[in-house]
Amino acid sequence: MKKSDVVQAIFRQPIPQDPKHEKGLAFAPTNIALVKYWGKRDVELNLPVTSSLSIALLDKGAMTTITLQDQAYDTVVLNNQAIPAHSEFAKRISQFLDLFRPEKKWHVHIDIKMNIPAAAGLASSACGFASLMSALNDLFNWQLTLRQLSILARLGSGSAARSFWTGFVEWHAGVQPDGMDSVAEPLAIEWPMLRVGLLTMSEKQKPISSREAMQRTVDSSILYSAWPKKVMQDLAILKQALHTKNFSLLGGTAESNALTMHATMLASWPAVCYFLPETIAAMHQIWALRQQGMELYFTQDAGPNLKLLFLETDTHHVKANFPTVEIVKVFE
Amino acid sequence: MKKSDVVQAIFRQPIPQDPKHEKGLAFAPTNIALVKYWGKRDVELNLPVTSSLSIALLDKGAMTTITLQDQAYDTVVLNNQAIPAHSEFAKRISQFLDLFRPEKKWHVHIDIKMNIPAAAGLASSACGFASLMSALNDLFNWQLTLRQLSILARLGSGSAARSFWTGFVEWHAGVQPDGMDSVAEPLAIEWPMLRVGLLTMSEKQKPISSREAMQRTVDSSILYSAWPKKVMQDLAILKQALHTKNFSLLGGTAESNALTMHATMLASWPAVCYFLPETIAAMHQIWALRQQGMELYFTQDAGPNLKLLFLETDTHHVKANFPTVEIVKVFE
Repeated sequence: MKKSDVVQAIFRQPIPQDPKHEKGLAFAPTNIALVKYWGKRDVELNLPVTSSLSIALLDKGAMTTITLQDQAYDTVVLNNQAIPAHSEFAKRISQFLDLFRPEKKWHVHIDIKMNIPAAAGLASSACGFASLMSALNDLFNWQLTLRQLSILARLGSGSAARSFWTGFVEWHAGVQPDGMDSVAEPLAIEWPMLRVGLLTMSEKQKPISSREAMQRTVDSSILYSAWPKKVMQDLAILKQALHTKNFSLLGGTAESNALTMHATMLASWPAVCYFLPETIAAMHQIWALRQQGMELYFTQDAGPNLKLLFLETDTHHVKANFPTVEIVKVFE
Repeated sequence: MKKSDVVQAIFRQPIPQDPKHEKGLAFAPTNIALVKYWGKRDVELNLPVTSSLSIALLDKGAMTTITLQDQAYDTVVLNNQAIPAHSEFAKRISQFLDLFRPEKKWHVHIDIKMNIPAAAGLASSACGFASLMSALNDLFNWQLTLRQLSILARLGSGSAARSFWTGFVEWHAGVQPDGMDSVAEPLAIEWPMLRVGLLTMSEKQKPISSREAMQRTVDSSILYSAWPKKVMQDLAILKQALHTKNFSLLGGTAESNALTMHATMLASWPAVCYFLPETIAAMHQIWALRQQGMELYFTQDAGPNLKLLFLETDTHHVKANFPTVEIVKVFE
């Protein structure tokens, strides 16, 4: 099955090609998975092997503005920097747009503003593609539902499926070959005391994309065979933690899930190692603080940075131990 | 089955309790596993889940001297430092000795000299128990075979089973409940060009013993289920590498095996992480050198230090990149 088949199945009719506004504008929050998405059951459609569960960062994400332009090509500007047309990033965006313009009747100027480092494991492609999809929907007034937007954005970047809501979001793996059931939905749970702390070790572009790392893990890591079972267990435990507001259980489950994901990567060949020396130093520091009784946990995505998980009451303590941490509220 | 049953099965008759010399003396080399021993099928007898394969370090290891003493207790001196009688280490040694003195007719003074850091992942307990077992055999003139010594020393520390030979040694997991087939044997392969480089990040006692880390992994790491398959594959590949003198294959297999072992630990809960920031920095440096074409690999045991694997021809290059490395020949 091809991406264009999915787009057709959602629109059912020829995709409206006339803009309704002068510009399309949308913000999408980045999301941090507490139970990770790692491994695809369909590489073309970005269908995951397992479900996953994330928390949206309220004010962190991507704001995308799209305006039609009278040119035979698209232009992309990211944080006020023009992206070369031949770059992977620009090509990926243009190919995504092609899904919605079968006759290439229009081209656009895309302006993306992100307040997170790009490609450093902070789900920049997730909020990037989610905001792009929403901005397109706005520009052409397609009136797609959030569920439909989630399915379509997923064709650009898997975890973009989760970036259409705030709070806790579950992306269901689904079982259908066309992925129509591989869609995210918000959980009706709030936890205003919850805090996420961004601990940035490096803003450098990561040495291997999460897309490539994921595929290498699936193809070459013997430990990957146990990953689906781990996710199934962790999802059940995490939901229990959310319903009972058991923070230790949430933190421990998220941390163990992240470490297990990175463990599957280390067993790939060539090994995928997103740990930097600074990452390991921070982990040991977190473990030492926990030994002293502090309720502090972390998660780590496909990049060297850690995201601290703690409760509002520990904010002062966290700041004292990690002076460079950027603390984010996850509920209003 | 108890340890004492194994000892009885080997001696078959009452264990001779009269010393034949004034002192028992033996050296045992430490060994570095290229395919690791991780996980026990019998905790009491130190029977492993899988076979393993190691290389002995020629001049690195433990020299143990045992003399009878006219006291009701044993004394242990390690590198000229008296070990407190109530310490775990001294108790472990006395309990091991008890296996050979059912009536507690004798006590000894044990002097161990090791030229490797103790308990920092350099198989100090392996060469320690192997040399202790050999020294006992010498003191009482029991005339045990190397095969019998291997089985008996394994009761003290699993990987001690491999420390009775130089060169490449395979420890067969065995299937018998009494472990009489869980014994090491040397491989008839020499590789004089092979070098091991000890890269010491920390000589501090490790935060968690390999014994405890191993058990925690088996009990709590979901990834451990894939470990036996990994070892089976790696053993076959490594033997092929040894027979064809394919160094890249040897290095890659050993490195992947070590990383996979550490990966199973990271997925334990609480996570076991022997990586220090310095460990990760060295790994990234090794990977960068390999990208440049250098044939340099590493392995890592239950400690923060790395052991570099390379061929004699790269000695100069290795020294230039790792000024503190201690290079060890593994064949005469």
